[in-house]
Amino acid sequence: MGYEIERKFLVNGEYKSFAFKQYRIQQGYLSVSKENVVRVRVRDDKGFLTIKSGAVKDRFTRYEWEYEIPLADADEMLRLCAQGVIDKTRYLVKAGAHTLEVDEFYGDNEGLVFAEVELTHENEAFTPPSWLGKEVTGDIRYYNAYLSQHPYKKW
Amino acid sequence: MGYEIERKFLVNGEYKSFAFKQYRIQQGYLSVSKENVVRVRVRDDKGFLTIKSGAVKDRFTRYEWEYEIPLADADEMLRLCAQGVIDKTRYLVKAGAHTLEVDEFYGDNEGLVFAEVELTHENEAFTPPSWLGKEVTGDIRYYNAYLSQHPYKKW
Repeated sequence: MGYEIERKFLVNGEYKSFAFKQYRIQQGYLSVSKENVVRVRVRDDKGFLTIKSGAVKDRFTRYEWEYEIPLADADEMLRLCAQGVIDKTRYLVKAGAHTLEVDEFYGDNEGLVFAEVELTHENEAFTPPSWLGKEVTGDIRYYNAYLSQHPYKKW
Repeated sequence: MGYEIERKFLVNGEYKSFAFKQYRIQQGYLSVSKENVVRVRVRDDKGFLTIKSGAVKDRFTRYEWEYEIPLADADEMLRLCAQGVIDKTRYLVKAGAHTLEVDEFYGDNEGLVFAEVELTHENEAFTPPSWLGKEVTGDIRYYNAYLSQHPYKKW
């Protein structure tokens, strides 16, 4: 069992030169409903299955479970995903005590870049660096599950 | 990746005295759609997450993946399942070269007992023992996912 507290920001400035790590990510959705999201992800050469429950703990928090699965299974599940598959590079960038995940999207979501920061509690201080723009925490248009069905190029 | 070829039969006679093993099973559904079923199961003291794809390989076969997960995770997912949770005992019974799984249901599905046999290929011979009744392979009313929403006592 895990809890997730995240804030999300659009990205306006240069960030790639600050990145200390990057991954290629492809992900699709086995289920998207009010109750939960079931996601399959290939991150570089590893497969993952993730369940995000719609059951909300508080404003920024929901239940989440993630399991590593064989890459061949994840690849096959991606091929069976009925909806669009998200393709992106994730850059990890330090910002003070925090690590930001900056996602640059490809394909039908090309042109979209946003950053997420995971906090350990809801009232934790976080000062956005200058290259972050508008906060979009909680805006469903920036959920990957939404983007897989309503890609950025069609907004 | 795995494939599953199953035939299912109602149970008319005595089978418990033939059982060589039994499990208590509770299971719920994170997703039920045309595309796939995502199931969480607690079998005795183990947790499992299973994905059954709706993508059909041939008449008796569909894709299926199963992963063991921590019991505490599975218990928590069961509590978050919006639909009814299936509660049953599974008895394993030998029938010639095959092993039958006989499910006796409790709660809202009390009174229902059916047996499944897994075959290695579609044309494999299987002679049902005398305590098996009508074949119900492919009848969606006997799918556990259906029973969780439409329990047997309300048929």
